[in-house]
Amino acid sequence: MRVLGLSGSLRRGSLNTALLRAAAGLAPEGMTIEIGCLSGLPLFDEDVEKSAYPKAARALREHIRGSDAVLIATPEYNFSVPGVLKNALDWVSRPLADPVMAGKPVGIMGAGGRLGTARAQAHLRDICRALGSVAVPMPEVFVVRAWEAFGPEGGLTDIGTQAAIRALLEAMMRLVPAS
Amino acid sequence: MRVLGLSGSLRRGSLNTALLRAAAGLAPEGMTIEIGCLSGLPLFDEDVEKSAYPKAARALREHIRGSDAVLIATPEYNFSVPGVLKNALDWVSRPLADPVMAGKPVGIMGAGGRLGTARAQAHLRDICRALGSVAVPMPEVFVVRAWEAFGPEGGLTDIGTQAAIRALLEAMMRLVPAS
Amino acid sequence: MRVLGLSGSLRRGSLNTALLRAAAGLAPEGMTIEIGCLSGLPLFDEDVEKSAYPKAARALREHIRGSDAVLIATPEYNFSVPGVLKNALDWVSRPLADPVMAGKPVGIMGAGGRLGTARAQAHLRDICRALGSVAVPMPEVFVVRAWEAFGPEGGLTDIGTQAAIRALLEAMMRLVPAS
Amino acid sequence: MRVLGLSGSLRRGSLNTALLRAAAGLAPEGMTIEIGCLSGLPLFDEDVEKSAYPKAARALREHIRGSDAVLIATPEYNFSVPGVLKNALDWVSRPLADPVMAGKPVGIMGAGGRLGTARAQAHLRDICRALGSVAVPMPEVFVVRAWEAFGPEGGLTDIGTQAAIRALLEAMMRLVPAS
Repeated sequence: MRVLGLSGSLRRGSLNTALLRAAAGLAPEGMTIEIGCLSGLPLFDEDVEKSAYPKAARALREHIRGSDAVLIATPEYNFSVPGVLKNALDWVSRPLADPVMAGKPVGIMGAGGRLGTARAQAHLRDICRALGSVAVPMPEVFVVRAWEAFGPEGGLTDIGTQAAIRALLEAMMRLVPAS
Repeated sequence: MRVLGLSGSLRRGSLNTALLRAAAGLAPEGMTIEIGCLSGLPLFDEDVEKSAYPKAARALREHIRGSDAVLIATPEYNFSVPGVLKNALDWVSRPLADPVMAGKPVGIMGAGGRLGTARAQAHLRDICRALGSVAVPMPEVFVVRAWEAFGPEGGLTDIGTQAAIRALLEAMMRLVPAS
Repeated sequence: MRVLGLSGSLRRGSLNTALLRAAAGLAPEGMTIEIGCLSGLPLFDEDVEKSAYPKAARALREHIRGSDAVLIATPEYNFSVPGVLKNALDWVSRPLADPVMAGKPVGIMGAGGRLGTARAQAHLRDICRALGSVAVPMPEVFVVRAWEAFGPEGGLTDIGTQAAIRALLEAMMRLVPAS
Repeated sequence: MRVLGLSGSLRRGSLNTALLRAAAGLAPEGMTIEIGCLSGLPLFDEDVEKSAYPKAARALREHIRGSDAVLIATPEYNFSVPGVLKNALDWVSRPLADPVMAGKPVGIMGAGGRLGTARAQAHLRDICRALGSVAVPMPEVFVVRAWEAFGPEGGLTDIGTQAAIRALLEAMMRLVPAS
């Protein structure tokens, strides 16, 4: 089972990207998590979609097509998902006639402040439904005061969060359609 | 009273940009609406924010600072605001120590399909609150089956929508703090 | 396959209850839809839950337990689900140790005004997830300007809505776990 | 300045009702907070609204009309506001021709678990806008793991929460229109 991990934050020291790396280390047997990158995408523009579909968007789409599930770690910017993440998903959704996310399980987690990105995740669930994907309903992984969950080397040290991620990955696995 | 109009769509023939142009023509006496552009912004990245704050983002922020209100026309992409619009607002919100949107009225409208971008607007209201701005509570301008509201030359011909926009602009005007 | 239909409106001439009756007539072979009633439930009170669990709430729970799926027709009151419907679902959720909605597909539709209860349905989807039930992701049935969809005898005459309900029932059927 | 406090929970030992009592003790000079009760209301039914408007609903409406602001403490039931609270607000909104909540500031707080009722509050903000009332935008009062914030006698002992409530009451006060 191949999982594509996407982080909503581009900064190098991102705790959400660190969360994905932690997830990769916690993956159950038979699951591999590869971490993609959203930095090379242009801003979505329907004229560009029609005239010169960007290579980076196509590559992201093919990566998703080749994966059994997508795992998203999202920060919360201004009570919602980062524009960076939404822009990537807008590209992923086009062309409408070839919906690569359809039926694909999406695991959702986020490292944040006092709500652990709960609002961003609520928006992201709406977006996932629009994409025809299947957001894993439970568990929800809200990493509250995320800076306290990581050790000095950047590893995820909080045991409760580790357990929550494991439970999320297992629930995601159960949603992958049998091939 | 100076208003900055922002469209969530970059494509040339955008009905949301057309909606802004229509609003500019419907503005009450004493209000001028200038239409800004979000196409030049890079993807938000906190490292870049710290090391080399982009010129285009700075310009957008100063444009907002010099305006009495912001008018947003948003399409709905995947049940939410376009990543393009959210990315712009993420830049606008930084640095946190200098919140240019604070206390600023934001008029919201959108041209869409059967719901007239209602879901995107719901997300946008959350975002506006995070920015410390004051989303105009009513009226809501949902342009349903938007392609039918515009004439062959691209002008807004639907009388009900014209009235709704006028009401929105007046409500927005009343929310501008007396200086 | 047995489906329990619940209407969020108690008034006799409710278009949402009429929508349920229409659904009962449109049910695919092998599915029967019985319409329940929420009017006899007291206001939820945890003290009462502990001391004297109400008969009507118990009956509703057993009706759900004996059904393969739940079909909800919700009006929109004040941009959300009616308190009547939410109160019923609050009872249904208790006691927490015996979650009768867990894994149960929930079909969602609504008869309303210009948005066809889209906001109420958005809240209802959140609530369904909390209950551990599986809200049918698509199609969404938003009956816009619902009064125009029904004939003088109260029957659903709008062909598009009939087709949407049929599609919803079929999607709901596919989500019932094989026993 | 007269404030009506409403709790979304009917149980005697409710932490949300306790939060209202704490707020009453923390009210700034010139503000008095009286705590109302939602237990006597019948389930909303439009037929009943027309034929025999309930006394308890009328009393609640008049209490609101005579108040300068409303302060709501809401638990979170099933990712939303309790049906009890929504049912009360549905009554309050009728008849539509006499909107007693219009222009009224509404302070929002809630005592809950790991998110401190954040989701219920998000729904409540939507509802407040539908009512034409003005939900205080900030601060948000999310009492996380609320049981730890109260002392053995039921008093609010957590200093951070006390400060947050004070800030909420002051922000609410500033939103009351000058008479």
